[in-house]
Amino acid sequence: MSRGLDALLRPKSVAVVGASANPAKISNVVLRNLSRGGLRVIPVNPKEEQILGHRCFPSVSAIDGEVDLALVALPAEAALGAAEECVRKGVGAVIVTSSGFAESGQEGKDLQDRLVSVFRGSGTRLLGPNTMGVFAPGHGLDTLLIPAEKSPRPPEGDVAMVSQSGAVAIAFLEKAERSGMGVSTCVCIGNKADIEECELLEHFAGDAGTGCISMYLESFSDGRRFMESAGRASIGKPVVVLKSGRSAAGAKAASSHTGALASSSDGLVDGALRQSGVVRAYDEEELVDLSRALAYLGHARGDRVCVVASAGGFGVIATDYVESTDHGFGLRMAELSPATKERLSSIVPAFSSVRNPVDLTAGVTDEMYESVLEVLQSDPGVDCIMMSLELQPPNVTRGLVDVAVRRRRASPVPIVVSAFGGEDMREALAALEKSKVPSYPTIFRAVRAVAALVERGRYLEKHKINRLGAPTPADGR
Amino acid sequence: MSRGLDALLRPKSVAVVGASANPAKISNVVLRNLSRGGLRVIPVNPKEEQILGHRCFPSVSAIDGEVDLALVALPAEAALGAAEECVRKGVGAVIVTSSGFAESGQEGKDLQDRLVSVFRGSGTRLLGPNTMGVFAPGHGLDTLLIPAEKSPRPPEGDVAMVSQSGAVAIAFLEKAERSGMGVSTCVCIGNKADIEECELLEHFAGDAGTGCISMYLESFSDGRRFMESAGRASIGKPVVVLKSGRSAAGAKAASSHTGALASSSDGLVDGALRQSGVVRAYDEEELVDLSRALAYLGHARGDRVCVVASAGGFGVIATDYVESTDHGFGLRMAELSPATKERLSSIVPAFSSVRNPVDLTAGVTDEMYESVLEVLQSDPGVDCIMMSLELQPPNVTRGLVDVAVRRRRASPVPIVVSAFGGEDMREALAALEKSKVPSYPTIFRAVRAVAALVERGRYLEKHKINRLGAPTPADGR
Repeated sequence: MSRGLDALLRPKSVAVVGASANPAKISNVVLRNLSRGGLRVIPVNPKEEQILGHRCFPSVSAIDGEVDLALVALPAEAALGAAEECVRKGVGAVIVTSSGFAESGQEGKDLQDRLVSVFRGSGTRLLGPNTMGVFAPGHGLDTLLIPAEKSPRPPEGDVAMVSQSGAVAIAFLEKAERSGMGVSTCVCIGNKADIEECELLEHFAGDAGTGCISMYLESFSDGRRFMESAGRASIGKPVVVLKSGRSAAGAKAASSHTGALASSSDGLVDGALRQSGVVRAYDEEELVDLSRALAYLGHARGDRVCVVASAGGFGVIATDYVESTDHGFGLRMAELSPATKERLSSIVPAFSSVRNPVDLTAGVTDEMYESVLEVLQSDPGVDCIMMSLELQPPNVTRGLVDVAVRRRRASPVPIVVSAFGGEDMREALAALEKSKVPSYPTIFRAVRAVAALVERGRYLEKHKINRLGAPTPADGR
Repeated sequence: MSRGLDALLRPKSVAVVGASANPAKISNVVLRNLSRGGLRVIPVNPKEEQILGHRCFPSVSAIDGEVDLALVALPAEAALGAAEECVRKGVGAVIVTSSGFAESGQEGKDLQDRLVSVFRGSGTRLLGPNTMGVFAPGHGLDTLLIPAEKSPRPPEGDVAMVSQSGAVAIAFLEKAERSGMGVSTCVCIGNKADIEECELLEHFAGDAGTGCISMYLESFSDGRRFMESAGRASIGKPVVVLKSGRSAAGAKAASSHTGALASSSDGLVDGALRQSGVVRAYDEEELVDLSRALAYLGHARGDRVCVVASAGGFGVIATDYVESTDHGFGLRMAELSPATKERLSSIVPAFSSVRNPVDLTAGVTDEMYESVLEVLQSDPGVDCIMMSLELQPPNVTRGLVDVAVRRRRASPVPIVVSAFGGEDMREALAALEKSKVPSYPTIFRAVRAVAALVERGRYLEKHKINRLGAPTPADGR
């Protein structure tokens, strides 16, 4: 039988303690979510024979065979007894979803201490309490307390998510699904009385199925260890963190939400995170946006950005975001070489601008756009391209999406897309995402993604990681 | 026959000069867009008898009866001749869509001077050149050069849009349509050789059908006059401006896009705009977002914000945005009165927090949420409420949308909503928008809207405008 994190993230059998036959109950929702996955699902309820076609057991100890993972959906006091039984049975990991622990005052804190002591010295691990559990689509594991009809799940992919809030995790998954981004595993750590963010960060850093680690945190269980782990992890793969409780009132709110101890001032946290190579996000949408860009494109080798659009206004707005330090990212607009400008001039339609931002005007065609991207990607002065994809010019077709995909594959100079239009645009965004071209329906979000690629490039440069993302021998790691 | 702006914005007859029977041509797109509106549509083309069922005329002068508005879709040189003919015919206003004028270098500048001189001294007004024209859904007027299938149009509503870029106007309309926001009129001013932003700002300031004026500008035709007009306009209704060309490279790009002269430094522009009561937006999505909030809710009487959520994590993230000055808006979290806290305690489920942010937990019901909002709206220490609407808690229904609508109507304390979920959420957002509750699918965008309401409230307070939005007698206006 698997143990520890393995039992939590890759179980073959999952018991649901407090399983209800009533579809309105959360434990029934969990059973339905689990039933889709092909794992052995074991409802525990002394009053039922079977639920949703699964044979019911009166207690955990009565279950025949081994149990990798148990989810306890009982009120706080009762959860303690169930947890004890799980430990006696030798269950690998236990998820306690119940609230009423450390987040709810002194009495709850005492209760949580008692819960933790149940697990102490046993080989059984605890996730929670006050958690939604785990989602791992490639493994058929879904203990989230919200039915998939109410909250659509993303496909399997390479972004791992660790969240101190179930709702933020759910919002993250919804937005991932909406944009077409895949997820390897999502773990809600809740009050993180045992399994916490450091252990998971270290786990996903070594997980071959994870290309980017995303986190929502309200506090650090061990700040020093986190920064060290993050520093090591981000040598190998991007780490994006939404750390809330940045303000005084926010920190106070976090403490009554998940019993989190307030962190040091956000200025200190910010410095430590950046020193550890962590890219910060500030809301749930940005967390998804940056994770997509970093997972797909890795980094940009420098901060010289080239903006290409067929609509001049978009080029101007994008340029402002690239260069400005107020409402912008303080990057540089690439200075195109004379040779590049000359080559562009022979391609583009009349009235185009071959300076950066390149304005292709409504006279553009798919072929022109492809040649222009090729020329720009071969200019050594261009580190990253933001492509504004408009499907409205008369001679442009859906083929422009394939152009972006081809050019993204043909050159290491990354391309981030902002797209405009109606239903066309939404189809284009989905197709681009499928081919791992990060794409956004607004200018701001696309430039924000470019800035994240530049930030990660700087970290790798500073740590002498070569362009392919592997540490150089001199780096000593 | 109507004249000037009236001819441009409320024509009864519209001629399309250079009308083509070929559906791939822009002039044909314009004819199709116009044909849906019930106006008299008059194609001008010497080689056709009729196009799309409209009788064709060989020239403008040959048209029987008066022509309010003519759209000229011919190459730059040929457009000059057509414009002359329109002036001779006594057409009220002429839209010249052609590019190749001031935005394209010295030769184009000369051509634009010649175009302007055609109109000088005549009663005929010029919109453009280098423009997409006008969209006024309540009047059946749509000259935009993009077919509605490719770019869905919003319904009639109370936001007027003036844009120096056709593409930004199109993106604005698409995002308005997507969110359900209505538009009174959208005017693309292009190179603004005659009709420019000041005149339109003054026009919409006095337009009863317009509740909020939105603008995308790359330059000011007359900065001083603009600031004065904006100052007057924003006493009566909100003015939101996306001014690009903020950075050096952006200003340069703007000049090759619409021939705009670079403005003074953005710091000066920013100060002048804020002094004139203008709320600034920085990209096309934000322009729509803030326009919706300001059009529907007007302003907040102060900066004390209360955040209510049924998911603690959302409350924490929102609180950070409210309070922080870095990645936030520097507003205040309202201090709830003891009486309010007591009343809340008697309503909310177990484990809820009755401090601000109010965390209703997954135990919330529609009824509880309604009572909580009522209590908060009656606390004099609360100036604005940000409500996080989650449809996933088991005892919450779609009725929560009606709760938000009822509470928005029952009290002058504004409610801005952020909503989460899958398809449910999108339906909720649409329903809220229909009832003029501004709602957003992310936390950041909702708090940004709250900040805009506070900013406008401060402007009105400073100018001694009373709570109802009308100037006090002492104000002297």
